[in-house]
Amino acid sequence: MDVKLVNPFIEATLHVLSSMAFTKATAGKPFLKKDNIARGDVTGIVGLIGEARGTISVSFTEDSILSIVSSMFGEQVTEINEEVRDAVGEILNIISGQARQKLETQGRVLKGAIPTVIAGKNHTITHITRQPIIAVPFETDSGQFTIEICIEDQ
Amino acid sequence: MDVKLVNPFIEATLHVLSSMAFTKATAGKPFLKKDNIARGDVTGIVGLIGEARGTISVSFTEDSILSIVSSMFGEQVTEINEEVRDAVGEILNIISGQARQKLETQGRVLKGAIPTVIAGKNHTITHITRQPIIAVPFETDSGQFTIEICIEDQ
Repeated sequence: MDVKLVNPFIEATLHVLSSMAFTKATAGKPFLKKDNIARGDVTGIVGLIGEARGTISVSFTEDSILSIVSSMFGEQVTEINEEVRDAVGEILNIISGQARQKLETQGRVLKGAIPTVIAGKNHTITHITRQPIIAVPFETDSGQFTIEICIEDQ
Repeated sequence: MDVKLVNPFIEATLHVLSSMAFTKATAGKPFLKKDNIARGDVTGIVGLIGEARGTISVSFTEDSILSIVSSMFGEQVTEINEEVRDAVGEILNIISGQARQKLETQGRVLKGAIPTVIAGKNHTITHITRQPIIAVPFETDSGQFTIEICIEDQ
């Protein structure tokens, strides 16, 4: 996988959190997932197809997403409910949409499938591919979250 | 969503379980998901794109998937480990591939993204779409599982 594909997703993530949720996040160093396992309490997943097959996921800890949506909604949210799941879907849709727009200006056209949101304490996420998966950890004042990007080479 | 799209997924599911895992499953009556929430212990998800956006998921209870993979592998599997997660990805890939082949003969071309498998006791699955989601419950001797199909109208 071409690592240049990763930056548009990092930029879109920082932008959506800052503009929609007034949350400052810091991106850590992207790393290659070796064991194919990430963990989270709420995860949004969206498939990508175009010149290549792909998948993008964003996995939040409960603390980080409750703080992000509380800031988005302007009121304290204390549990992962339907509104939180919808917000994760919306955040993922915007990340995916903005990143795909940037990739399109580089001549890489990918379309997004219907996103799915999974909620459940400390679940694992495994992308079924033999190609590399790049994970990017993010820090916020209220906890961390991770995006995972896999776009197969043609 | 055109309900005729659902049958190829039911047939593919019954076929893959019978041929790969020597497991007889019975499909219950498909129903429209109203609350957008399903639950499972292991879920495989794959995005679809072509003439329309879509997503397919298959959610197993722990009992049902352990029995299915024990039968697939010919040895007792007692926990949801990497092999089980990979098997769920493989089962989903085959369901998606066979169903898409049948849909293609009807003139509906959809491609599959990279599948993702989520494991975690009693997690919820929410597809982020305003269009109907059709759920199909299946029964096996060792428990139940559910597939969910959403293919947006153009």
